[in-house]
Amino acid sequence: MQPKAHIVDLPVYQPGKPIEEVQKEYGLSEVVKLASNENPYGFSPRVKAAIESELTKFNLYPDGGAVELTAAVAEHLSVQADQVIFGCGSDEIIALIARAFLSEGDENIMADATFSVYKSNADIEKATSIEVPLKNGTHDLEAMLAAVTDRTQIVWICNPNNPTGTIVSETELKSFLDRVPSSVMVVLDEAYFEYVTDSAYPDGTKLLADYGNVVVLRTFSKIYGLAALRIGYGVGQASVIRSINQVREPFNTTRIAQAAAKAALADREFVESCRIKNTEGISFLQGEFDRLGLSYFPANGNFIMVDTQRSAADLFQRMLRKGVIARAGFKLYPTYMRVTVGSPRENEIFIRTFEEALNEQGAAV
Amino acid sequence: MQPKAHIVDLPVYQPGKPIEEVQKEYGLSEVVKLASNENPYGFSPRVKAAIESELTKFNLYPDGGAVELTAAVAEHLSVQADQVIFGCGSDEIIALIARAFLSEGDENIMADATFSVYKSNADIEKATSIEVPLKNGTHDLEAMLAAVTDRTQIVWICNPNNPTGTIVSETELKSFLDRVPSSVMVVLDEAYFEYVTDSAYPDGTKLLADYGNVVVLRTFSKIYGLAALRIGYGVGQASVIRSINQVREPFNTTRIAQAAAKAALADREFVESCRIKNTEGISFLQGEFDRLGLSYFPANGNFIMVDTQRSAADLFQRMLRKGVIARAGFKLYPTYMRVTVGSPRENEIFIRTFEEALNEQGAAV
Repeated sequence: MQPKAHIVDLPVYQPGKPIEEVQKEYGLSEVVKLASNENPYGFSPRVKAAIESELTKFNLYPDGGAVELTAAVAEHLSVQADQVIFGCGSDEIIALIARAFLSEGDENIMADATFSVYKSNADIEKATSIEVPLKNGTHDLEAMLAAVTDRTQIVWICNPNNPTGTIVSETELKSFLDRVPSSVMVVLDEAYFEYVTDSAYPDGTKLLADYGNVVVLRTFSKIYGLAALRIGYGVGQASVIRSINQVREPFNTTRIAQAAAKAALADREFVESCRIKNTEGISFLQGEFDRLGLSYFPANGNFIMVDTQRSAADLFQRMLRKGVIARAGFKLYPTYMRVTVGSPRENEIFIRTFEEALNEQGAAV
Repeated sequence: MQPKAHIVDLPVYQPGKPIEEVQKEYGLSEVVKLASNENPYGFSPRVKAAIESELTKFNLYPDGGAVELTAAVAEHLSVQADQVIFGCGSDEIIALIARAFLSEGDENIMADATFSVYKSNADIEKATSIEVPLKNGTHDLEAMLAAVTDRTQIVWICNPNNPTGTIVSETELKSFLDRVPSSVMVVLDEAYFEYVTDSAYPDGTKLLADYGNVVVLRTFSKIYGLAALRIGYGVGQASVIRSINQVREPFNTTRIAQAAAKAALADREFVESCRIKNTEGISFLQGEFDRLGLSYFPANGNFIMVDTQRSAADLFQRMLRKGVIARAGFKLYPTYMRVTVGSPRENEIFIRTFEEALNEQGAAV
């Protein structure tokens, strides 16, 4: 009864402390959590009405093919229904891609640092991960291209990149796609797509017609505000989506998630208002970091990665005790903290607490 | 961009026709679906209140560790919290077990016919599946034991068995467990556990202390009536659960599912009333099958597998047109139909339609 030898040392997910526990432990009346890139404005008001009838049907299995939602997303993106697959968050699509396409001896390439789920799933499949350092916090596509070998199965490009928030431009991406072998799958993880305002940013789904090796990931967890419901999707060539479907469990998304996502997708006004408020929040936080003399990476998602010029892990602990949770502990970026753009009030509390903690901790290193 | 060679021919899940479509296609005012072993009595009234506060928090990630639900289930079963893992239905636990424990060259043993998800996941991992024919519709544990080799990693025992509904007794199971090598994982899939009234039926979780190689699967999709919410669980030794956690995505169950499951678990009265009504439904259906001169396997879950003595696929189509959906198409049992035990009204409609269709189809083959 031995697990696969190569998974024995893989880390097990350690759940973060629930807000309630942090409140209790430090005697806090309020905790502001800006650690998970959640939407501070909730979700579309249309969602509530859309799921009403589902709340009486918990005993019935979901539609395993998510037919209605698939049709809605396909129409939204101007692709065919057989080019779309849904998962329990786009996390699951990453896991399914790895399960379908990566084997021992295969190589896959990702940035360092980037979203950790690419590598953890490649590890499970015993594929070799080539981690290419970011350049100024941005994917170094030239170096990633240079890392391609005849064993490369997948290149993962997180755009905007988590945790740095940087983007690769359409020009850079096309130049990369023009040169990468068509036998290499290029996964564009666009979890934060709807937040981006930079006109140089590419829409991966518009590249599918010209580049048959592209797979785009999107999610309802971020701007759509449905993280609790676990629903994301992949878009690609029908043959690739079919392969991913071959390793998918039939009922991997819930009835409520399917109904909520369909309603959320249709409410463009909510999405637009979240994007505008997020952009304002970025400006506010960047202005404050400027005032404090701190640099940060260009922020294109709903989070900013700021160089605190001190041990970010220490700063994190100081802020935690004051009731503000951000994210630190980035291996390559020990002085950086990633903060989610919250509501104006949350952003103000963050900055006040951040400045207090900086002052306590003392001069920059 | 080639998927793993061995998955190329795996089947893709084909979603069944939605009830609405069947209604439209055949001009029916009502469709009775007794095909998916769903609970005709819905779910505990406590669930609605328990999820109320979650309905405002769709934008927040779930507790990836399902801490509260884990504690509730652990207490309910008198096991430790680190012996329990939750999945998107027990289907996902099966997939995770395969992903953690099965490799190319490994063997795994299951009944034929049984729940198809064991084999489909073994196929994905390129493990060899040894399918041991049922004996009178029941797991043939002696033949399964004889099939064990030094390559055997897992034996799957579905108890009650889906689709036949038969059980293996505690005596038979213990005799099997006493002789199977302790290096072989024995997965007891007890999705229908709460429906069983036969006193010879074993509670797998009570065997964990004596048999370290046992893993028990349970679900909230059946008697608890939460199939739409996708939540099931596995229970085993902490070290085994840890290995399964190593291949689990962090946020694989939703906030609503966790809250609903906790409330559902606590409502023993609802579970008891469903069990009683299910037992009455089985008696009714068996009485009617007796009247029609048809035999059936002993029914221990919330479904009955009846020998129609005719092409069950034909019968299925005739009944579909009349607005009743059951399940046929069992490779080894072409004359058998599996019918979910519905409400008294549904059972009566089923029998009336079944009898009409039998008469149309003509004499037994």
